[in-house]
Amino acid sequence: MKLRKLSLVTAVGLISCSVSAQHYVITDTDLQIRKGAWVVKNTDINQDAPTFLIRNTVLSGGLQNDSEVLTIQSDGLTIRLSPTRGLGILSVEGDGIRLGWNSPVKEVVNPQYINLESRGGNGWLEGFNEMLVRCGFEWTGHAVQADGMLYTLHGRAQNTPVAKLFVDIEDKAPYTITVSGLIQEKAFKKSNLETWVRLSYVPGSKEFIVHDTVTNKGDYPKDYQIIYHSNFGTPILERGAKFVAPVKEISPFNDYAIKGLKNWQTYLGPTRNFDEMVFNIYPYADAKGQTQVMLANKVGNKGVGISFNTRELPVLTLWKNTDTFNQGYVTGIEPGTSFAYPVTIEREQKRVRQLPPGKSANFTLKYSLLSNKEAVRAYNNAIKTIQGDQKTTVVDEPMALE
Amino acid sequence: MKLRKLSLVTAVGLISCSVSAQHYVITDTDLQIRKGAWVVKNTDINQDAPTFLIRNTVLSGGLQNDSEVLTIQSDGLTIRLSPTRGLGILSVEGDGIRLGWNSPVKEVVNPQYINLESRGGNGWLEGFNEMLVRCGFEWTGHAVQADGMLYTLHGRAQNTPVAKLFVDIEDKAPYTITVSGLIQEKAFKKSNLETWVRLSYVPGSKEFIVHDTVTNKGDYPKDYQIIYHSNFGTPILERGAKFVAPVKEISPFNDYAIKGLKNWQTYLGPTRNFDEMVFNIYPYADAKGQTQVMLANKVGNKGVGISFNTRELPVLTLWKNTDTFNQGYVTGIEPGTSFAYPVTIEREQKRVRQLPPGKSANFTLKYSLLSNKEAVRAYNNAIKTIQGDQKTTVVDEPMALE
Amino acid sequence: MKLRKLSLVTAVGLISCSVSAQHYVITDTDLQIRKGAWVVKNTDINQDAPTFLIRNTVLSGGLQNDSEVLTIQSDGLTIRLSPTRGLGILSVEGDGIRLGWNSPVKEVVNPQYINLESRGGNGWLEGFNEMLVRCGFEWTGHAVQADGMLYTLHGRAQNTPVAKLFVDIEDKAPYTITVSGLIQEKAFKKSNLETWVRLSYVPGSKEFIVHDTVTNKGDYPKDYQIIYHSNFGTPILERGAKFVAPVKEISPFNDYAIKGLKNWQTYLGPTRNFDEMVFNIYPYADAKGQTQVMLANKVGNKGVGISFNTRELPVLTLWKNTDTFNQGYVTGIEPGTSFAYPVTIEREQKRVRQLPPGKSANFTLKYSLLSNKEAVRAYNNAIKTIQGDQKTTVVDEPMALE
Repeated sequence: MKLRKLSLVTAVGLISCSVSAQHYVITDTDLQIRKGAWVVKNTDINQDAPTFLIRNTVLSGGLQNDSEVLTIQSDGLTIRLSPTRGLGILSVEGDGIRLGWNSPVKEVVNPQYINLESRGGNGWLEGFNEMLVRCGFEWTGHAVQADGMLYTLHGRAQNTPVAKLFVDIEDKAPYTITVSGLIQEKAFKKSNLETWVRLSYVPGSKEFIVHDTVTNKGDYPKDYQIIYHSNFGTPILERGAKFVAPVKEISPFNDYAIKGLKNWQTYLGPTRNFDEMVFNIYPYADAKGQTQVMLANKVGNKGVGISFNTRELPVLTLWKNTDTFNQGYVTGIEPGTSFAYPVTIEREQKRVRQLPPGKSANFTLKYSLLSNKEAVRAYNNAIKTIQGDQKTTVVDEPMALE
Repeated sequence: MKLRKLSLVTAVGLISCSVSAQHYVITDTDLQIRKGAWVVKNTDINQDAPTFLIRNTVLSGGLQNDSEVLTIQSDGLTIRLSPTRGLGILSVEGDGIRLGWNSPVKEVVNPQYINLESRGGNGWLEGFNEMLVRCGFEWTGHAVQADGMLYTLHGRAQNTPVAKLFVDIEDKAPYTITVSGLIQEKAFKKSNLETWVRLSYVPGSKEFIVHDTVTNKGDYPKDYQIIYHSNFGTPILERGAKFVAPVKEISPFNDYAIKGLKNWQTYLGPTRNFDEMVFNIYPYADAKGQTQVMLANKVGNKGVGISFNTRELPVLTLWKNTDTFNQGYVTGIEPGTSFAYPVTIEREQKRVRQLPPGKSANFTLKYSLLSNKEAVRAYNNAIKTIQGDQKTTVVDEPMALE
Repeated sequence: MKLRKLSLVTAVGLISCSVSAQHYVITDTDLQIRKGAWVVKNTDINQDAPTFLIRNTVLSGGLQNDSEVLTIQSDGLTIRLSPTRGLGILSVEGDGIRLGWNSPVKEVVNPQYINLESRGGNGWLEGFNEMLVRCGFEWTGHAVQADGMLYTLHGRAQNTPVAKLFVDIEDKAPYTITVSGLIQEKAFKKSNLETWVRLSYVPGSKEFIVHDTVTNKGDYPKDYQIIYHSNFGTPILERGAKFVAPVKEISPFNDYAIKGLKNWQTYLGPTRNFDEMVFNIYPYADAKGQTQVMLANKVGNKGVGISFNTRELPVLTLWKNTDTFNQGYVTGIEPGTSFAYPVTIEREQKRVRQLPPGKSANFTLKYSLLSNKEAVRAYNNAIKTIQGDQKTTVVDEPMALE
């Protein structure tokens, strides 16, 4: 199972790193490798390494038949990833706090059973239950018929099994674990995007990094979009829970959200007929573009923070879906290049980016579990520092009508 | 293979039953079980049990790759079910009589290779070859574009692999075998239906029971529809074969069927250019809502009967597809909550039912193989008793135009 | 592995042949056989047989999970076929010359991950990377909405896993190897086509034969179309490469191709913004209908020839896609019953053929690797002989507008 030592430079090809690491190939369509069931633990690396266990399993039966789940267990966090669904994050757990939510969709649905064009382009909803869904990269946003085709809800990346799946583990402290997957969005004449999606985690810690690189392998410029659709339910989301962010401007996604503008910073409990309210946010950032946002429970002793760079991800969608539990009580905190409007609107409003031939774009997000008052307070203070005395503009009408 | 003893109450969760039974889990997506190839026989239960063999197999190759077929063999009937296709019934055989038909589609097509939206929403036809297809539960009927989506022909249930597959066998007489499967029709915000579909069979007997329970697991009322599309070809269907039912009202599905009204009770042999004639029937029932209908061959020594309750399934579609053999010589006898019109028409005409949050609806149908004159005559008499001297109204125009 | 001796008559059912052969069943959905990994070599047949190795492998991971590749290796050619993708030819190699091309699509995409209706009916492009794609048989050509359905680009055959896969090897000289696959295009009431697709190869030689038989198993006449989409890139395709054919008439497929008419016989190198130019050709043939066409590199020492019969395949599409390398630098030489217009236009212009019930149509094409000047010259001369002094009509406007 342990193949050979490689520096991460070689292994992942994109992260510059001088620490040597164990490199495990779980799947590689070029080398005809698919290990399926696989496991590695700290003692396989080094007697001094902190406790961890990484296990890849193959689910079976129903709509999740042949879907893989890769789990990192440690004294800090337990992280469940779905290689078959674009290496999305199913859930994270630490200190008894779950990051994720309860969707009516229970299975880890294999994309072979999903027709993204069904339900008027909303087939994506038949698999949606993750803590992190990458909405992109060829396009994202609400479904729309344009250019003689149907741009289906939130693109195809999450419904693409990775063509390569690597696990790299540093063989000295801090023994960083990096899980990398390759998403290929290919279609002759239409798309030639290759995206390395990665999660890095220091065993025992309470945070992890998502670091993705999308590359245009084609010879022509290619539009791309990405929304990091990060979803949280109980126990952090609850009546009185707070969303905290350094906000330059916030506006309602549509008319229905206008009446939620006055309470955008707090959440309702599960509320019948609430459906969803969505807000478009331009965050403030520090001089280097770094910013951070947080969801915390009412008393402020449980939370989750996301830090990212507004040069990479300039906008943030706040999705409040505080409907009933069985309907899916959840909020989405969604840094992105785009808002969730259809690609036609995002193009008009100039939020669709373009990659020149051979060029890449990087996206780095750090997710932090905040499991006590001190952690929540410190994260909150850092957000306040970014905001400083800068004003928040509340725009009371949508920037676009779908 | 033999897991543990359970009462059926625990095993299936819905049938109240005090007989203890052997409970076999063939597939369970929660427990990560998918046995695939599996077999149990009477002597595994009890030396006194009548002869039977239950075998689950995994098909391979072509469009049926990884499809499962579960077969119950006994001295009475041999019943073939398709767990990968919603636990539909492929065929039944007993006394040399086959219940089922010959479709041009020969493979047990894995839904992963079917696009229900293809052929204008008629992709369902690429897998259709079963004796029993459940058309539902989210919607059923002819394909129609409405509500910004395509309601594909006859819904999704039959193209959904079951998430759970159990076999329960009573460990004392009558040693009833129950095969249960869980169909999940889930989509965030759209559908949260869970349906237990079941077939119960007493080894050695000439009848079996289909007993389904659809439950709305969501927090909002949810429409549902179901048609039990039960299909029979040779040897029962033939020139001069008869359809017998206690009919309150019969009307043509469309203009083409008007000219078939005068002979609705009998069948043609394979007839070039016949295509199909469809009739909408409201059956009479007894005081408890029980009714029964029958297809019998010309001389009346082979037949199949279906009994059901009109409170559960108030209408019946009679589908006469007596075209040539290779085109599919078959008749459908289809008790349902709805006729086969598109959901838009069924809604207008108030045949679409609704499940309140957390509530269930049950459907029970008993299928009887009638393998001699006495059995056919007795079944016929029971139908006549229900009809009594009540009149049959023949309406000579369709209740709706598609 | 070696099942039994059969004459090819029995084995393939359609080729009349008195040589006895080893018959290997790799896949048979009727017999529940799918061998997956499998290999046979010359010494398994006979000590005198020339060197060859035939290997079937099952790919895994990504979008190509569970796709099969069958490879024939020999001292003459190495031929890679894709049973999961309609037994298309992935690539052929001999004398250091590759027949095939480099598509942005790298995986041998399992059709379970392709939605042919996506991208406005162009989902086919997500799997397109073969040297030979069969575009048919139910329909072919550009996508079009008609008859209440979407006729997707180039039909369904290439995205249909074969239901049967046989390898037959003659047990005496010339030890012809025949790989046969069964493509079933079935849909109740809609299609009942069965097509045996075959490749025959004499080990050590530099040519192979494609021989297909499409049969209408239904009881009604059925339209069919086929285009043998044969695709070549480097090293044969290059700046100054030549297309040679006995041409009766050539016309531009659309307005964009008009300006390419004067240079239809030669190719550009990889050319930014070239996109594609397509030409419709009616070839001349000899008295028996036989004709042949050739692609050769500039200096004329590398080439590929295709011979076929114009009674079977009366038209030829020349597809010049000499765009950049990463966009897919490739030309298609495409004998067919139809041009690449949508089926609606092909019908209007009477190029759609029809099979009576139970009848078959055969198509035979011989592909020759031309790996030196002599071979190219000889092939060229044969083409010139067919043309003789007959005139080539260059029509300067498209025969149809899409």
